[in-house]
Amino acid sequence: MQYTKVVILGGGFGGINAAKTLGNTKFDVWLIDKTNHHLFQPLLYQVASACLSPGDIAVPIREILSRYQNITVLMGSIEKIDKGAKEIHLKNGDRIGYEYLIVALGAKHSYFGKDEWEEFAPGLKTLVDALKIRERILMSFEKAERCDSISDAKKYLNFVIIGGGPTGVEMAGAIAEIAYETMLKNFRRIDTTKTKIYLVEAHTQILAAYPPNLAAKAQKYLEHYGVKVLTGKRVTDVSKEGVTVENTFIPAENVLWAAGNQASEVLKSLDVPLDKQGRVMVGKDLSIPGNPEIFVIGDAASAPDKNGKPLPGLAPVAVQEGRYVAQIIRKKLPLEERPPFRYLDKGTMATVGKTKAVGMFGKITFSGFIAWLAWCFIHILYLIGFRNRLTVITQWLFSYFSSQRGARLINRSIEGDLPPPKKHE
Amino acid sequence: MQYTKVVILGGGFGGINAAKTLGNTKFDVWLIDKTNHHLFQPLLYQVASACLSPGDIAVPIREILSRYQNITVLMGSIEKIDKGAKEIHLKNGDRIGYEYLIVALGAKHSYFGKDEWEEFAPGLKTLVDALKIRERILMSFEKAERCDSISDAKKYLNFVIIGGGPTGVEMAGAIAEIAYETMLKNFRRIDTTKTKIYLVEAHTQILAAYPPNLAAKAQKYLEHYGVKVLTGKRVTDVSKEGVTVENTFIPAENVLWAAGNQASEVLKSLDVPLDKQGRVMVGKDLSIPGNPEIFVIGDAASAPDKNGKPLPGLAPVAVQEGRYVAQIIRKKLPLEERPPFRYLDKGTMATVGKTKAVGMFGKITFSGFIAWLAWCFIHILYLIGFRNRLTVITQWLFSYFSSQRGARLINRSIEGDLPPPKKHE
Repeated sequence: MQYTKVVILGGGFGGINAAKTLGNTKFDVWLIDKTNHHLFQPLLYQVASACLSPGDIAVPIREILSRYQNITVLMGSIEKIDKGAKEIHLKNGDRIGYEYLIVALGAKHSYFGKDEWEEFAPGLKTLVDALKIRERILMSFEKAERCDSISDAKKYLNFVIIGGGPTGVEMAGAIAEIAYETMLKNFRRIDTTKTKIYLVEAHTQILAAYPPNLAAKAQKYLEHYGVKVLTGKRVTDVSKEGVTVENTFIPAENVLWAAGNQASEVLKSLDVPLDKQGRVMVGKDLSIPGNPEIFVIGDAASAPDKNGKPLPGLAPVAVQEGRYVAQIIRKKLPLEERPPFRYLDKGTMATVGKTKAVGMFGKITFSGFIAWLAWCFIHILYLIGFRNRLTVITQWLFSYFSSQRGARLINRSIEGDLPPPKKHE
Repeated sequence: MQYTKVVILGGGFGGINAAKTLGNTKFDVWLIDKTNHHLFQPLLYQVASACLSPGDIAVPIREILSRYQNITVLMGSIEKIDKGAKEIHLKNGDRIGYEYLIVALGAKHSYFGKDEWEEFAPGLKTLVDALKIRERILMSFEKAERCDSISDAKKYLNFVIIGGGPTGVEMAGAIAEIAYETMLKNFRRIDTTKTKIYLVEAHTQILAAYPPNLAAKAQKYLEHYGVKVLTGKRVTDVSKEGVTVENTFIPAENVLWAAGNQASEVLKSLDVPLDKQGRVMVGKDLSIPGNPEIFVIGDAASAPDKNGKPLPGLAPVAVQEGRYVAQIIRKKLPLEERPPFRYLDKGTMATVGKTKAVGMFGKITFSGFIAWLAWCFIHILYLIGFRNRLTVITQWLFSYFSSQRGARLINRSIEGDLPPPKKHE
């Protein structure tokens, strides 16, 4: 008997859940990802802020799927999708045919056409991004300590985070904790409490998806932790020296980008309508127009909710979409028999600093310490793998009680990028 | 009152212990290291073999020494020592004066004049080395899985470790565990149990510092785990394609170097006699000839034991030397009043594979599972930091019971270095 071949592109929340739903069935399932690991992205900012190690939030895709004999995992980068020939082209020249295709390629940053800003304001999507940002943050304090005068040191002690969505809010809170608590007794010349952290958001409120009163609470928490929140302000320039927010220049070595998303370039090869962010406008069954055997899910898709508005780019959306399309494939349902996808909203949350969070569940909102405990509990619960849960709990308990952070490592030499030399005698 | 200035070069076992002994005294102590962290090197092979994360075995030097107000930590690379002017020159042009100097700069690999081998056979001294080796090992299996035929895949499934000292033995055992246990159910086309692991040692026995019967036992354990041990064999060439052991060519993508050590180049600027490995021939008080205010300790020193033979390059030697020279400095003892350094040998151990170890304490030798348990216990005990102990215990228990490894991450793309493309249809 010939098995029906299903190819899944991407091992994020959508891809992994689609694969699991098709595990140990009579389908020949191939999952292709450019890395070897599934990343628990909601905790990525904790790697960037030196609290967790990469291994704590990433699990090999092969390991997650090892018990399903019908699933083959392949590490490879995708060049394009040839929907006419029903083939995937990999960058190394390989071609892989499919009968069903699930595209779950996620999103990357968008600099709104200002790609030259990327060099100075890295974004946070992959483990490599997180390690780069971690090193920049830690190195900044080292450089400041070696400066001649406190005015020289200033630009190393200024942090600007562009974008006030959940990632921006979480990074701002984490950097505040590093500067005002973790590093407190570590330096002899600089006073790390002089660190200034700016969070810049073009919208009139941070956390645009949240109701205004909840966003105001989150802003109050951030300000309590020492973060300067600038809402309704647009960034007009980013350079090696710093950030220009409308007409004000903020000198800063450390600028983080958390402002915009853009779907994968590969989606263009599907030759179907895309939205402004480059996401595929899928139908109610998450398939693309004209090709009911191709589904697009997660951050790569612009899927309509029951009011016709696009669903947000959140992990639970991708998880549910992955399971839904896998069920359609299992049953080999023709287009007209497919029930429309319904997203079951289990609520959203964001942490703010060390011990606060905000969240909402339908119309119910909650905030403060209790919300933060709930956030910790939920994120531990959804983390894949028993070992990861245990080590993350250990790290969190340790950080909570000691204000220390477990992964404060700089691997490159400070001499690579030097502050002005200073005389010590 | 003017404090006496002590400069310590290097934040390894020797430097950190010297600094601690001088902590909260009336000395102005400066510790300079090129990284920001103290590394627990005995467990470095576990990072290279994907069991532990870098953060588990490294702690910021600033953090370790934060409670000592008289100690300043500086991240910087050393250019040379000017013993005439009593100054350290940093690579950025800074000069730092001293009244006492403790040189604890450790060692790096030596390729015995064949530096061109380094590219193909990386050594294991730093966290960056460990991450590179980890990536090479994991990537090899990925590449093998993508090969056309099993004969193409062979070179990706051959591992050669050059040097049968403790590091070589530990790496060989760890790779055997990865290939024969961890990866067992993860691949669909290759059979990871076909992996061949060679350990090549020029000496007539592995673990040259151990008695022959104990070394024979370690070899037996390794062979039981599937490692091919070649003793009395010299490596004559290392290239991109593999390793030539005398007249036999072994095709291999993964070659690890664990054969030789060489002290830091900076020591040459001291202008005193060095031994063959570039270590400073120190006196009985660990100071250098003609300059009683300069001490050299740890792997940078060739210190005589009570029989006049040089002490081995082990962590406990460096720890005891660091404390000893710090005591001499605290008491400001003149040369003639200094008691000679006495190393208290607490024994040495090496793990072999997942559950075996060999060790000796004076004339007593021990081996097997009990020795392995003792090894685990001692290494946990000496690990700096409560958090690190907890997470390492968690990872070890997890690895022991599941044969899984917690940090199996590849960060670069497989397309960078491609095996021949294969057709899948």
